Amino acid sequence: MDERLTVLVVDDEPLIALSIADALEEAGFAHEMCHCGDSAMATLGDRDPAFCALVTDIRLGKGPNGWDVARHAREIHAALPVIYITGDSAADHSAYGVPESVMVQKPFVAMQIITAISNLLNVG
Amino acid sequence: MDERLTVLVVDDEPLIALSIADALEEAGFAHEMCHCGDSAMATLGDRDPAFCALVTDIRLGKGPNGWDVARHAREIHAALPVIYITGDSAADHSAYGVPESVMVQKPFVAMQIITAISNLLNVG
Amino acid sequence: MDERLTVLVVDDEPLIALSIADALEEAGFAHEMCHCGDSAMATLGDRDPAFCALVTDIRLGKGPNGWDVARHAREIHAALPVIYITGDSAADHSAYGVPESVMVQKPFVAMQIITAISNLLNVG
Amino acid sequence: MDERLTVLVVDDEPLIALSIADALEEAGFAHEMCHCGDSAMATLGDRDPAFCALVTDIRLGKGPNGWDVARHAREIHAALPVIYITGDSAADHSAYGVPESVMVQKPFVAMQIITAISNLLNVG
Amino acid sequence: MDERLTVLVVDDEPLIALSIADALEEAGFAHEMCHCGDSAMATLGDRDPAFCALVTDIRLGKGPNGWDVARHAREIHAALPVIYITGDSAADHSAYGVPESVMVQKPFVAMQIITAISNLLNVG
Amino acid sequence: MDERLTVLVVDDEPLIALSIADALEEAGFAHEMCHCGDSAMATLGDRDPAFCALVTDIRLGKGPNGWDVARHAREIHAALPVIYITGDSAADHSAYGVPESVMVQKPFVAMQIITAISNLLNVG
Repeated sequence: MDERLTVLVVDDEPLIALSIADALEEAGFAHEMCHCGDSAMATLGDRDPAFCALVTDIRLGKGPNGWDVARHAREIHAALPVIYITGDSAADHSAYGVPESVMVQKPFVAMQIITAISNLLNVG
Repeated sequence: MDERLTVLVVDDEPLIALSIADALEEAGFAHEMCHCGDSAMATLGDRDPAFCALVTDIRLGKGPNGWDVARHAREIHAALPVIYITGDSAADHSAYGVPESVMVQKPFVAMQIITAISNLLNVG
Repeated sequence: MDERLTVLVVDDEPLIALSIADALEEAGFAHEMCHCGDSAMATLGDRDPAFCALVTDIRLGKGPNGWDVARHAREIHAALPVIYITGDSAADHSAYGVPESVMVQKPFVAMQIITAISNLLNVG
Repeated sequence: MDERLTVLVVDDEPLIALSIADALEEAGFAHEMCHCGDSAMATLGDRDPAFCALVTDIRLGKGPNGWDVARHAREIHAALPVIYITGDSAADHSAYGVPESVMVQKPFVAMQIITAISNLLNVG
Repeated sequence: MDERLTVLVVDDEPLIALSIADALEEAGFAHEMCHCGDSAMATLGDRDPAFCALVTDIRLGKGPNGWDVARHAREIHAALPVIYITGDSAADHSAYGVPESVMVQKPFVAMQIITAISNLLNVG
Repeated sequence: MDERLTVLVVDDEPLIALSIADALEEAGFAHEMCHCGDSAMATLGDRDPAFCALVTDIRLGKGPNGWDVARHAREIHAALPVIYITGDSAADHSAYGVPESVMVQKPFVAMQIITAISNLLNVG
């Protein structure tokens, strides 16, 4: 049984997805990767044990965008830590983001993702 | 010219709407009242100067619900203070609420609304 | 059925207890009053529906003190808003207080109590 | 001996000063009023017991402005609650404000001041 | 003289204690290790300069548990950063934890501990 | 074009400046270094794109100190993350610091700086 905390990463830009995956592994997190919103929606519903966090880009090509994916993720797991990554949609966070989520703007360093997940996982 | 801060209250239950309106007036706020989501959406777009805050029930009968109204309000005014009132939808806040919003559960006292608006208006 | 939110006030100083009770009533809260820790412990276990908040002095004469009462209250209702009132024990809060509680030092104005309860009841 | 909590209000606009004073009294606070920065600086140094909070306009005519007054107040009492009131200087708060202070923009309702003081006085 | 920040780690599970110790060293912290509550209580009282943080498991076999150790630590050093680690006692945090503490649930990654200590050490 | 996030580090102690620079590079940040307040003030005004954060010691020898540098930085970029480093001026933060800044006391570990910058860059 894999007891490791697993983060779902949703990004259609391979280079960014890779750098996030590397940082997660180095910090001790496992991860699964989805490259579009549809596969992310499906993956969220299937998984047991649940993911420990969602890291998602906003623009995901055709299909659901990152706002949609996060909303669906919170329907399944109300306390899920959510981190959005964006180049140009930061201003939309106040209308489309979920509560208690974190918005990371590009360019960013990987530690911003790790710090955000850690803060959201820690209670109190 | 009316310089008073004006709160948009959206509720289809007249007694609750009235008690909120009374508390707002006593605290020095002006208010406008909408009884359904459609009129709230229209009112938000028209108003100048903008409302200082939105207080909305979640269930609003036919048409847009409170989650929809708040999202639309934030599209227009990204920093608008948003307070949701609900009897039974508190668990949905983490999936459908907007960031930095406050959820007030029934039964409540009017001071919870006034305190929530004051906190969200105050900077820092 | 009384749907009003009810605050448990625990204080062995009648004048302070009275001023808190008045402020709670004016803000729309019902209240019950206990004058020692033992009766507070008993009252907490019996009540249905649960209290919406606990306001307790630290020094309560013989028997359990305010720290004990709050810990017991949180055993029963993990999310209960807790407000401590004290003249001289504020420095002990970091060792004996419960998480997410508020410490109000004497002298105080009643609005500090009302604001503290409102903030702790409001979600988000 | 007056045990009441006393707020220092610094404002050169009599109508606004009066409305703040009324709200403070109604909430149970005593207050002292200064109409310019120089008298505020002098009053801060003299007072014993210390003020429980400072409410200051930014523009104060000739002499020290509200940023100066607050900095001086914090030199004397490092934990003093500070509330700034402004019509047009809100954008300067991030450069000239003191940490853990609150900025209230005109127009405002008096409850914003009372809520801000209460939050800053309450510990935890 | 050792100027390094030193964390007290209290855990009776050698593997977890070791992984925390490794992460602390890698982040630049020194550490001392205790394997039961009694030795932790004794170590806290003796140390000069004081520890910079306490990381403690809740269940510690015979003797004081992690809640007791943290309360004692805060009696000695009121502002000490406290991080609890637990597999099954997270629900008890609201009754037995100290204010401003962080609860980390197993399984966890070491960065959650480092982030928690850093946040609690940083002022403002 | 260098898309990397660049931190301005202002410190007149070479060893500390070097350890901060190393930690920033390891975390993926670029940095520029100033050894006195005057050069920091000049550098802040010139740079395009803007720095992503300011890390400054308080005592900087002759010329502007860290409080002055941070205030000037916020005049230029109102939302700039500001981290102060100090051995003995922590008590002055409440009077001279800018809002939403972080104070790191010596001795410290580099991760405190990285965590502080990450938290201040992340929105929400």
